[in-house]
Amino acid sequence: MRRVAVFGTGSWGTAFSAVLADAGNDVRLWGRRPELIETINSTRINADYLPDLRLSPQIEATTDSAYALDGADLIVLAVPSQKLRENLAQWGDLAATGAPIVSLMKGIELGTQLRMTQVIGEVTGVPQELLAVLSGPNLAREIAAKHPAASVVAASSAATAELVAEACATPYFRPYTDLDVVGAELGGATKNVVAVAVGIAEGMGLGDNTKATIITRGLAETVRLGVALGAQPGTFSGLAGVGDLIATCMSPLSRNHRVGVGLGQGDSLEEVVARTRQTAEGVTSCESILALAHSVGVDVPICEGVVAIVHDGQRPALMADALMARERKPEKT
Amino acid sequence: MRRVAVFGTGSWGTAFSAVLADAGNDVRLWGRRPELIETINSTRINADYLPDLRLSPQIEATTDSAYALDGADLIVLAVPSQKLRENLAQWGDLAATGAPIVSLMKGIELGTQLRMTQVIGEVTGVPQELLAVLSGPNLAREIAAKHPAASVVAASSAATAELVAEACATPYFRPYTDLDVVGAELGGATKNVVAVAVGIAEGMGLGDNTKATIITRGLAETVRLGVALGAQPGTFSGLAGVGDLIATCMSPLSRNHRVGVGLGQGDSLEEVVARTRQTAEGVTSCESILALAHSVGVDVPICEGVVAIVHDGQRPALMADALMARERKPEKT
Repeated sequence: MRRVAVFGTGSWGTAFSAVLADAGNDVRLWGRRPELIETINSTRINADYLPDLRLSPQIEATTDSAYALDGADLIVLAVPSQKLRENLAQWGDLAATGAPIVSLMKGIELGTQLRMTQVIGEVTGVPQELLAVLSGPNLAREIAAKHPAASVVAASSAATAELVAEACATPYFRPYTDLDVVGAELGGATKNVVAVAVGIAEGMGLGDNTKATIITRGLAETVRLGVALGAQPGTFSGLAGVGDLIATCMSPLSRNHRVGVGLGQGDSLEEVVARTRQTAEGVTSCESILALAHSVGVDVPICEGVVAIVHDGQRPALMADALMARERKPEKT
Repeated sequence: MRRVAVFGTGSWGTAFSAVLADAGNDVRLWGRRPELIETINSTRINADYLPDLRLSPQIEATTDSAYALDGADLIVLAVPSQKLRENLAQWGDLAATGAPIVSLMKGIELGTQLRMTQVIGEVTGVPQELLAVLSGPNLAREIAAKHPAASVVAASSAATAELVAEACATPYFRPYTDLDVVGAELGGATKNVVAVAVGIAEGMGLGDNTKATIITRGLAETVRLGVALGAQPGTFSGLAGVGDLIATCMSPLSRNHRVGVGLGQGDSLEEVVARTRQTAEGVTSCESILALAHSVGVDVPICEGVVAIVHDGQRPALMADALMARERKPEKT
């Protein structure tokens, strides 16, 4: 039996804690809010995010990061991507545990354009070979319901990837291993932006052809950007690329999708956020991904369109017209 | 102005005739059944397939294949894939027109394992450089509603591809050109089988993670098979590959999907067909694709699973268990 420290009591941190417990690990689940932590420990339910999931007694919630880290064989991080750096500064010395760290986060840091494992490495000093990312078509509420799903654990060290995969393999959760950390992290970040674009199309009343076209062209720009950053193109054809993208874009419950639908119906970002009381990773990440693309000279028209609509108030119809009116050309250029 | 002969009054043949008319062509639309042809000419509606689409007067329906072919600058074929050979034998001498032929069909011929342009070439003697295939995320009823969509025209001759693309480009329909005929045709055929598998998962009550995983692994086996047959792997990342696959699998109205849902709920193929009164390309194509894969020694576990459920009456739960229980491994093997 292994001890795992999970940081983050959102829906994915909570659902993944249940996977870890089902795989035979003891879990210490860190959260910021004392009232939520107390409720989880007394009721075994995280009512804010996954009210239907009964958490095993192997999961102990805590607000004490030192307690969570004490004796941890593996550390799992699942906080909003733009909050990672400030959280890392408060949790204490993660490197001292000597444990591998796996990121469940999907975003690019604003301002620095760093991927999540880069932020972790920079702040904690944990060596690259102990860092991993887990990414795939993993909608949290379906994992919580124990529906069959697969995922990718990518790490620069095959041993670290295999250790993480072994720690979370259950009959309903099937982790594959891979060495392409850049590809897995980038695929996870860009899919949120593409999901916003697909939601916008749906909000405009467009159908499945248009949505499939946006997904396909969104994948093409992700591949272009990924290759420029050193990722392997094949990663984007896999679970952490097209798999995650499809699951997010298919699900009407995805926050990125819902925000996009509101924007496509003509609401401003402020109106959408006020009504849904939710933010979405794609809304913050589109700007940092566009900056990252500019830094390596890659054209990302769908990401650019989302930034224009989300942050510059452009009318969605203009984006659709612009995407359809370009000169006709071979597909593979 | 150009004259186009379209063979097939199903939903795609009819919707594509409307695209061709909107692109400025005169269309002669051939169909087998005199009563449907007469109704189309008198009411301008194909009530059997697209009751909401009013057809332009530029489209003339006919049961006379010689009349349809007379003076045609371009020939479009859109009949069920397993009926192509017998239809070609009845339509007369297509080669005599000297016109390029574009296939809208998505299937592999049972018994011969030939792609549609191979069947056309074999029966008509029309040279390869005049043959093309059009494929992409193109649900007919959305094209009929003039929702924005993109597609790929693939031909071994760039000039033929460009001629076809130019003939069907409209403000709402954007054709890209490509040279990979094998990839475009294979992607179109296998997506129907994957759509059946996704429908089966939905019928079993499984969620978007599982469906996205099936689509991703289905894409992986299509790439393996395509590469063995001489296709370019990049084609499957494009509109005729993942684009078409996603549109078909997203749409609850796809026949392949609906047949799969019935099978996943435990009905036999006979019961599903009796209730829906529809057949689906994926049901016939899964056998010919499996035979094609065997002929080149490629493993296609999802296609194999669909054949077992559709034709051998295997219980769907066994397929799910088999796919999840394989040994854990790197993703890219």
